[in-house]
Amino acid sequence: MPAENLAKAPLRLGIAGLGTVGMGVIKIVQEKADLLALRTGRDVVISAVSARSKSKDRGFDLSGYAWEDDPVALAKRGDVDVFVELMGGDSGPAKTATEAALALGKDVVTANKALLAHHGQALAETAEANGAVLRFEAAVAGGIPVIKALTEGLAGNGITRIMGVMNGTCNYILTRMQATGQGYNALFDECARLGYLEADPQLDVGGIDAGHKLSLLASVAFGTKVNFAAVELEGIERISNDDIAHAADMGYKIKLLGVTQMSGRGLEQRMTPCLVPDTSPLGQLDGGTNMVVLEGDEVGQIVLRGAGAGMGPTASAVMSDILDIARGTRISTFGQPAATLVDAIPAVAATPAPYYLRLALIDKPGAMAKITSALGDAGVSIDQMRQYGQTDDADVAPVLIVTDPTPRSGLDAAIETMQATGVLVSDPVAIRIETV
Amino acid sequence: MPAENLAKAPLRLGIAGLGTVGMGVIKIVQEKADLLALRTGRDVVISAVSARSKSKDRGFDLSGYAWEDDPVALAKRGDVDVFVELMGGDSGPAKTATEAALALGKDVVTANKALLAHHGQALAETAEANGAVLRFEAAVAGGIPVIKALTEGLAGNGITRIMGVMNGTCNYILTRMQATGQGYNALFDECARLGYLEADPQLDVGGIDAGHKLSLLASVAFGTKVNFAAVELEGIERISNDDIAHAADMGYKIKLLGVTQMSGRGLEQRMTPCLVPDTSPLGQLDGGTNMVVLEGDEVGQIVLRGAGAGMGPTASAVMSDILDIARGTRISTFGQPAATLVDAIPAVAATPAPYYLRLALIDKPGAMAKITSALGDAGVSIDQMRQYGQTDDADVAPVLIVTDPTPRSGLDAAIETMQATGVLVSDPVAIRIETV
Repeated sequence: MPAENLAKAPLRLGIAGLGTVGMGVIKIVQEKADLLALRTGRDVVISAVSARSKSKDRGFDLSGYAWEDDPVALAKRGDVDVFVELMGGDSGPAKTATEAALALGKDVVTANKALLAHHGQALAETAEANGAVLRFEAAVAGGIPVIKALTEGLAGNGITRIMGVMNGTCNYILTRMQATGQGYNALFDECARLGYLEADPQLDVGGIDAGHKLSLLASVAFGTKVNFAAVELEGIERISNDDIAHAADMGYKIKLLGVTQMSGRGLEQRMTPCLVPDTSPLGQLDGGTNMVVLEGDEVGQIVLRGAGAGMGPTASAVMSDILDIARGTRISTFGQPAATLVDAIPAVAATPAPYYLRLALIDKPGAMAKITSALGDAGVSIDQMRQYGQTDDADVAPVLIVTDPTPRSGLDAAIETMQATGVLVSDPVAIRIETV
Repeated sequence: MPAENLAKAPLRLGIAGLGTVGMGVIKIVQEKADLLALRTGRDVVISAVSARSKSKDRGFDLSGYAWEDDPVALAKRGDVDVFVELMGGDSGPAKTATEAALALGKDVVTANKALLAHHGQALAETAEANGAVLRFEAAVAGGIPVIKALTEGLAGNGITRIMGVMNGTCNYILTRMQATGQGYNALFDECARLGYLEADPQLDVGGIDAGHKLSLLASVAFGTKVNFAAVELEGIERISNDDIAHAADMGYKIKLLGVTQMSGRGLEQRMTPCLVPDTSPLGQLDGGTNMVVLEGDEVGQIVLRGAGAGMGPTASAVMSDILDIARGTRISTFGQPAATLVDAIPAVAATPAPYYLRLALIDKPGAMAKITSALGDAGVSIDQMRQYGQTDDADVAPVLIVTDPTPRSGLDAAIETMQATGVLVSDPVAIRIETV
């Protein structure tokens, strides 16, 4: 190694949280010390760690590191240059300790999407006021270096749209529903048994976790303050095997898809079930893998795919931020100074899109005419329509419609009219088709 | 913008080469000045430009920039902080001007894969000796930020393998051969007419251009000196529609695939036609799009997909390097100091793999037994075998074999034995199947 690199002081980490990710980081720092020094020009070392239980056997030798019961004390240690926050939680010790580190001008690397989705703006301001950087690659899409791709790799682009499948558990459930015909509830129970669900399952199946990630991507993409509260959230609980099968028939797959774009309508942020073409990269994404699609006005469409969770992938992302700091790279948390981020005006309505519509139609003469009239009167054109043979319920005809692109308000008006005519035997199912 | 950012001096570019990419960079600098300043904290401006023809109308106003006929003079100008080399060519003015800039400690951003594949080590050493950075995101896979993903995003990983489809023209030809049944020659002529081919078409269809890119990825991945001369190169000229159709029958697509990996055998670098499963991301990549698959020991498999060429995508990648420099990011050319890059020992043999084997078998009793004996004697197991009905040539039976993973030497020994027995009416076709 050249002499000028040897002269650089080691970068000293304090790691708070010794769960899967924390231990993954420790493993890399221990096992790859030489490689990391070669790549960054300095040693990366661990000074101290903190977790709830000191006595738990974690399978790695931690005896060389100082122990702190209190993560705030860890953050404040004189021998800690970078506070690595891997505790989780959108408040409590994760927040307090992060604030304490930033206030002292220490850099912070975190994997905590909930913390940043709720307090990202304030934390970024604190960081910059104190000359610190706050980075969160691991908070979005696990091992995929998507924050780096967006903030740095595509920095010469105006971002036009981002789409992402960013909750592996939801994509696993939807994939298995299609592959096996099992229902949502059975697969939810399977995920619970396998340990795939967060302690609060709504974080997964309700789309909250993925919504947190989307709100962070939106901020970086559009230079807006994180606004998780404005994310339109809808989980996968109401997706039926019927809809999955009908969508497949028409060439689509159903995904819990995050979409954010900025238009004259304002900032759109949705984390909702959508149909995507089954031949598209998003449509072909099966199982627990994550995918993020970045669209820039110069680069066109960039697709990134990889593991969204797990020890190695998440630790890889945490290390990316740590090694950036070791190399002297200093990027603002959201890609531009926090003070320059603007309040986003939430879009009053989503960009028009085609919709998938499933209707249970009463099997009587004139019923179909009432449906098509309702759509026509609301200005909604039909792209494809299929009527299936009668179901077991002898008087009900299932009808599937794919509309041309339409504002959601037009579709809602048509649905209201249909319901008023009394030709529907149950509530219609309407799912947005995202053009990818 | 905060006062501390306004205080930063503008970053002044000198752009040599005003073709598609150069004009794409000028367009971004002109049209996105405010956005770039917001993201980097300083103005990014153009001081001077250089090209072969000053009088050519390029559709953009260049009157605000000084003109230099000589790119070396441009590189040496006092008002140029970053020399942006977009001329191309592995020697001549591109090399001379790059050396001149680096010798003066000026940073260089280039899109020139040929220059770096041949002189990357010497140029990186010159850069580092003079405190300059030399970056080349645009040289590999166009708009895909793959060098950044590898050098920075995956810096905590030991890289185990990289695969890439990195020549859009070749992938376009192979895709069209499959979709239309047209032969290689007709599609080559179509590409020539459409302007998809380099002036020397061997750069495209011979795999040289993609091989340059692979050699750069290998250096970054494995910390080795660029060794383009050791890349095993085979173009797509000999791929037949028969092989494409037979491969499809067995669930594969044929791609011009770059593969680099480091093993006990040494450094493998191949840019050759390969079969990949048609359900894999690489198998699903149709047309002119690029894809790079990065495999790390922590992160697993990361797939990156996007436009590999074109004005906007390539300029986007050039801007990524320029904006890194504007932000103060300083990364070694190949991800670690040039002096620490080691000579790679080229692998004496490729990692064992399954192979696709197409044989034209004389239609006589015992012929098949001779084939299977030849394979068995060489230690090659058969995974799948298909014999098709006779072709127009009444005495020839086409036989397809997919082997189990085998060293190439075993396969070659078996083929030699088969040929000696006289049961083959033409040379066998053997294509590696890359496990993805």
